[in-house]
Amino acid sequence: MMHQEQRQRTHDLLASKGIQRALFTSSNSVRWLTGFAPPIQLPNLFLGAPALVWYEAGHYTLVVLDGQDGLVADLQSASDCAVITYMGYTIQQAIASGDRLRETLAPLLQRSQAQGPVGVEVQDTTLLLQQLLDSALPTRAAITPIDGWLVPLRMIKTAEELQKLRENFALTDIGHEAARKAVQAGKREIDVWTEIHAAVQQAAGRRVPLGNDCVVGYRQNNIGGWPEDLVIREHDNVIVDLSTLAHGYWSDSCMTYYAGEPTAEQVKLHQTCAEALTFAISLVRPGLLAKELDQQVRQFMQKAGYAVYPHHTGHGVGVTGHEEPRIVPYNDVALEAGMVILLEPGAYFPSQFGARLEDAMLVTANGAEVLTRHDKSLP
Amino acid sequence: MMHQEQRQRTHDLLASKGIQRALFTSSNSVRWLTGFAPPIQLPNLFLGAPALVWYEAGHYTLVVLDGQDGLVADLQSASDCAVITYMGYTIQQAIASGDRLRETLAPLLQRSQAQGPVGVEVQDTTLLLQQLLDSALPTRAAITPIDGWLVPLRMIKTAEELQKLRENFALTDIGHEAARKAVQAGKREIDVWTEIHAAVQQAAGRRVPLGNDCVVGYRQNNIGGWPEDLVIREHDNVIVDLSTLAHGYWSDSCMTYYAGEPTAEQVKLHQTCAEALTFAISLVRPGLLAKELDQQVRQFMQKAGYAVYPHHTGHGVGVTGHEEPRIVPYNDVALEAGMVILLEPGAYFPSQFGARLEDAMLVTANGAEVLTRHDKSLP
Repeated sequence: MMHQEQRQRTHDLLASKGIQRALFTSSNSVRWLTGFAPPIQLPNLFLGAPALVWYEAGHYTLVVLDGQDGLVADLQSASDCAVITYMGYTIQQAIASGDRLRETLAPLLQRSQAQGPVGVEVQDTTLLLQQLLDSALPTRAAITPIDGWLVPLRMIKTAEELQKLRENFALTDIGHEAARKAVQAGKREIDVWTEIHAAVQQAAGRRVPLGNDCVVGYRQNNIGGWPEDLVIREHDNVIVDLSTLAHGYWSDSCMTYYAGEPTAEQVKLHQTCAEALTFAISLVRPGLLAKELDQQVRQFMQKAGYAVYPHHTGHGVGVTGHEEPRIVPYNDVALEAGMVILLEPGAYFPSQFGARLEDAMLVTANGAEVLTRHDKSLP
Repeated sequence: MMHQEQRQRTHDLLASKGIQRALFTSSNSVRWLTGFAPPIQLPNLFLGAPALVWYEAGHYTLVVLDGQDGLVADLQSASDCAVITYMGYTIQQAIASGDRLRETLAPLLQRSQAQGPVGVEVQDTTLLLQQLLDSALPTRAAITPIDGWLVPLRMIKTAEELQKLRENFALTDIGHEAARKAVQAGKREIDVWTEIHAAVQQAAGRRVPLGNDCVVGYRQNNIGGWPEDLVIREHDNVIVDLSTLAHGYWSDSCMTYYAGEPTAEQVKLHQTCAEALTFAISLVRPGLLAKELDQQVRQFMQKAGYAVYPHHTGHGVGVTGHEEPRIVPYNDVALEAGMVILLEPGAYFPSQFGARLEDAMLVTANGAEVLTRHDKSLP
């Protein structure tokens, strides 16, 4: 019964707002509502549109390209969610996935019994879909934009999501084990990255998309970026910030490694980041405002004598890599038990060195349960 | 002057159709018009929309998310193409890239001097963009859908594109060298894949997205698919079909490898595929219809006693992995000098073994120049 709880929460929200039917077009919403997680390493050339969910009076229909049945097998046993497919690839005629999608979706809309406005995620709704809604619904209906409505619901993770996230954090732990061994003078950023990615995929037994950063300290922007062919020298630091994508969910975690012995300045910064992270985790409890947490961690780094980092202090994670609650200066959202957040203090000296350490944690009734287990100690 | 020739061809087409202004929203069109090639291995969370191109009377403006200036540096020197950016990531306020995009694009549209209908790629135009066109243009203008208009223009590659494609095919050649060594009894599909990807990235010195197939012969569907943790046994074949993405362009090429000695049946099939590919390449010349080429290669395999393959005989390649000319049974498009096509005969015995060999070639005045150089001989 993949993601049944997500659909129940959404049904409750829509019912409370008087919405009896809705079209979800954001791929994040679709993934969260159904667990449908198509591969994303290369664009699919045969899509009429990314997968969609049509909702009507407590029942959901996932509309996906054909040939992806293996990805929706679990869902097909769910009583509240049907799956329909349309043709993409064919050699018998020109690819016309948009037309095939239209022909598949129209009868579903025409059967609509519900009354009142149609909720639509308009930001990701293409003109093709808009025209289809206008023409296929039995009576022309007003559209209520519902963009972002699921974002607050997504903050509290279900047991099923926690399981996916735990498996996923275990993959970044494996990546960090490989990174610790890989960072050596003479290797390039891309060599380190390649060893990390290989270790993650070999452990998973399948392809796993990997983000985010693998940057040597002597870069001008040494906060983050994709690995290049920059050579790591003795004493250089390398910031390795990893997100894996497993079952449609993201993970995240960061560590800073050193080629050979770190310098005294690097040791001091690394230890300060480690203390800031420990301090940050100690603050986590239900009720704490995101902006208060942000402020306290920034102040910790400042008191230790470092310029405040230019990025967020942390963020939620789930079907996207950065989501609510964003741990940033403006955010009044209060932490709640069941959220999964990242915290990641750092400091950066452009073109010289830098450090960032990051852990993931589940917010619990009493505090935080740390979900990442990578070794953050100095060599 | 990145992609100036593409913009000139497009201007000529639009002028011939009486279109003085147009919005290009397909990422394939944007990449082809400008060379702008953002990384695609993970979705960008801070986009208001994928990059756009606004065209007016011979001048183009690329509209992209901020922080990607490095990717558009070459373009900024082009006299016919401006670049404007809008804010994505910030810690000072909620992410509102859609609003920022709207605020950035609206003044550009309001300055429009051109008359008549607005060409719009409607299939990839979101409601947000549609509303913006309606509200920001000085006078409400009729929309002329221009989806697919660039597809025929894209078939003939420019010198600049050929250079990108040649570099890219060299990467798949490197991948195949690694695959030939990697395929051994006891390894898994994912292990082979990981060695290929590492070799490609180490040679490129940067991250390179990699497709498509790495499948052992005893799979039920042994034509294609992502590598899994299936173990390769002695005598098993592994079909390795590789696309790399470099500078926004795709490559492609396929080879079949064997763990240890291939069986007599495998040798016969492999040699037949090699002969079919040689035969196919010998047919290539300007004026040949795609469907005739398709038919002749299918017949070659049938005459050799094999069931005809269920996929295309080949396809064009460029800013997408499969594009016109599609070498398929229905297609009346004639080959022309300057096209880059793939040809890939194969045959498959489900759950047992299969083979496919694929080369890329430039169609020339006299025939074909093969662009892929991977070793397709038996071990």
